Amino acid sequence: MKVLALAGGVGGAKLADGLAQALPPDDLTVVVNTGDDFEHFGLTICPDLDTVCYTLAGLANPQTGWGRVGETQQAMSSVELLGGPTWFWLGDRDLGTHLERTRRLRAGDALSAITADFCTAWGIRARVLPMSDQPVRTFVSTDEGELAFQEYFVARRCEPVVSSFRFDGVAQAAPAPGVLDAVAAADLVVVCPSNPWVSVAPILAVPGLQAALAAKPILAVSPIVGGQAIKGPAAKMFSELGILPSALAVAQHYGSLLRGFVFDEVDAAQNEAIAALGIIPRSTATVMKERADRVQLAKEILDFGRSLLSA
Amino acid sequence: MKVLALAGGVGGAKLADGLAQALPPDDLTVVVNTGDDFEHFGLTICPDLDTVCYTLAGLANPQTGWGRVGETQQAMSSVELLGGPTWFWLGDRDLGTHLERTRRLRAGDALSAITADFCTAWGIRARVLPMSDQPVRTFVSTDEGELAFQEYFVARRCEPVVSSFRFDGVAQAAPAPGVLDAVAAADLVVVCPSNPWVSVAPILAVPGLQAALAAKPILAVSPIVGGQAIKGPAAKMFSELGILPSALAVAQHYGSLLRGFVFDEVDAAQNEAIAALGIIPRSTATVMKERADRVQLAKEILDFGRSLLSA
Repeated sequence: MKVLALAGGVGGAKLADGLAQALPPDDLTVVVNTGDDFEHFGLTICPDLDTVCYTLAGLANPQTGWGRVGETQQAMSSVELLGGPTWFWLGDRDLGTHLERTRRLRAGDALSAITADFCTAWGIRARVLPMSDQPVRTFVSTDEGELAFQEYFVARRCEPVVSSFRFDGVAQAAPAPGVLDAVAAADLVVVCPSNPWVSVAPILAVPGLQAALAAKPILAVSPIVGGQAIKGPAAKMFSELGILPSALAVAQHYGSLLRGFVFDEVDAAQNEAIAALGIIPRSTATVMKERADRVQLAKEILDFGRSLLSA
Repeated sequence: MKVLALAGGVGGAKLADGLAQALPPDDLTVVVNTGDDFEHFGLTICPDLDTVCYTLAGLANPQTGWGRVGETQQAMSSVELLGGPTWFWLGDRDLGTHLERTRRLRAGDALSAITADFCTAWGIRARVLPMSDQPVRTFVSTDEGELAFQEYFVARRCEPVVSSFRFDGVAQAAPAPGVLDAVAAADLVVVCPSNPWVSVAPILAVPGLQAALAAKPILAVSPIVGGQAIKGPAAKMFSELGILPSALAVAQHYGSLLRGFVFDEVDAAQNEAIAALGIIPRSTATVMKERADRVQLAKEILDFGRSLLSA
C-alpha cells in the first residue's frame, strides 16, 4: 500500500516516523508544509521540513521534538553577546543545515532537490518532499495586526488572538516535482496530527494539490485530544475562530475531504457525531510519547486505511 | 601621540594588539582592509576585520592567528556531512559574528556602525574602522585566470602565479565614517606588517585616503623578514611580480609614501639601501611570536615614530 502523508512539524514528524517504521521505504512519501519557512540572519530556514527530516533520521531532540539531539549553542551565544536576536534559537549542528541549504538555494538548486540530497546524506529512506519549490509564507492576522508566522509562533509565543491566515505566494506556487506523481501513486493519504490551520492548510492551498487529492481515500489524525492540542496553538486557534476545539471540530474542518478520521479514545463519545458527517471514525490511543507509540499508531492507521480501501 | 594603523589580517592584527597595549585607547585607530570580504553560505564574512577584532579582544586562536580560541566545529561538520563546501572553515562562535553582521547589514546598518557595536560588546577599547562601508572585493589575476580573493587565498592556497590585483568596487567606495577624521587627527600613521599587495593596497585605493595620508608622517613595518613572509603569500607575490622579495623591496614598493621604515634586524645589511630611498630606516626584532613581542615591537615603533616627528 503506497502512502502519502501530509505533515507539519513535531506531531506530523512523529507520525511520519511511525509510518516510516511500519512501511517499506518505497511505499512512503511525506509532503511537508513550507509555509512556516522564513529568512533569518540571511539564511533560509525550513522548520517543518527540518523537524520531519531530523525525526526520520533519528537526529531530532527528543525533549523538544524540534532541533537536533546533542546540540551545542556556540553560534547563538555569540549572537547573544553581540546583542542580536535570540528569539529563534539555532543550534550549531542545525545551523549547518541552514547554511548549506541557503548556499544551494542561492546557487539555483530547487528546495526539493536539496531536500532529497539531505535525506540521502542523513540516511532517510522514505521520500520527503516540500509542498512546493516556490516560497510560500504564512501570515497570521491577529488582534495585534498581521504577523509573519514565526513572529507569531516563536517570538510572540502564539499569544496574539488569531482571526485569519494568509499564505503569501501560494497562488504562484506549484506542487514540488514528485508531489503530484506521489498523489497519483498513493493508495492512501494520511493527514498527520498537525495544525489544520497553519500546517495542513498551506499544503492544501498549493494550486492543483487539493484537486488531485480529491480522487484519493484520505484519512486525518486529530491533533486535538480531550479538547487540547498535544503541542502548539491548534486548540487556541479553534477557540479564537469561534469553534469549540474538539476532535469533531477537526473532522468538520476537513469535512468532505476525508473518508476516515482517527481520533483519541478519550474522545470516543464523539464517534457518532463524526460518523454523521459521512466520515468513518476510528478512536484509538493517538498520543505518541515514546518512539514505540509512533509505530503502534502508524500500524493502526494503516490497518484502518486498508479497511477503508476494501470497504 | 595619536596613531592611525593600517592593517590586514594576522600580522596587522598582532601589531594592532601591541599598539593597543602600548597606547591609551583614545590614541589608537585601526583602519582595516575589507578587500578580502566575501559572501559565503549567504553570509557576509569580513576575515581581516574579524581577525583584528578577535585579536584585540583576546578571542583569537593563538595557534592559527585567525578564527577564535576554544572554537567548536559542529556547524561545519554538519555542512560537510551534507556535501557542502568546507574549504573556508567557519567555527561555531565565529559563525555567530557572521550571522549577526549579515542580519544587520541586511537591515541597512553600515559595516562601520556594526563594527563599532561589536567592538563594544567584545570589550575592545581602541577604535576599529573598516576602510569603507561600501563593498570592495579583491580579485587576483593569475595564470589560472582571475580568481576572487578567498578562492585564490584559501581554496587554491595561493598556488596560482599572480600577475596583478583588482579591487572591485573601490572606485565607488568612500572611506568609512571616521576614517578621514582619524587620518586628520593622527600624529603618526603606521602601516602594519601586512601584505602590501592585497592587505594594504586595497586600503590605499579607497578614493581620498591616499591624498589625506600624504600630509602625514607614515612609517611601515616590513612583512618580509630574511626574504620570507612571516605568514601568507607576500614573498611569493613579490617573486611572481618579478621583484626579489626583501625588506628593501617593501620599502621601494611604498616609496615616497613613507617617512620611516621598520624592518627586521636580520636584514640590517639593507639599511643603507633603504636610507638611499629617502626613508629613515630602523632595524629591530620584528617577529611577534609571543604576545609580549607585540607590545615590545609597538613600543619601538612608537619611539621611532616620536623621533621622526621631532626630526
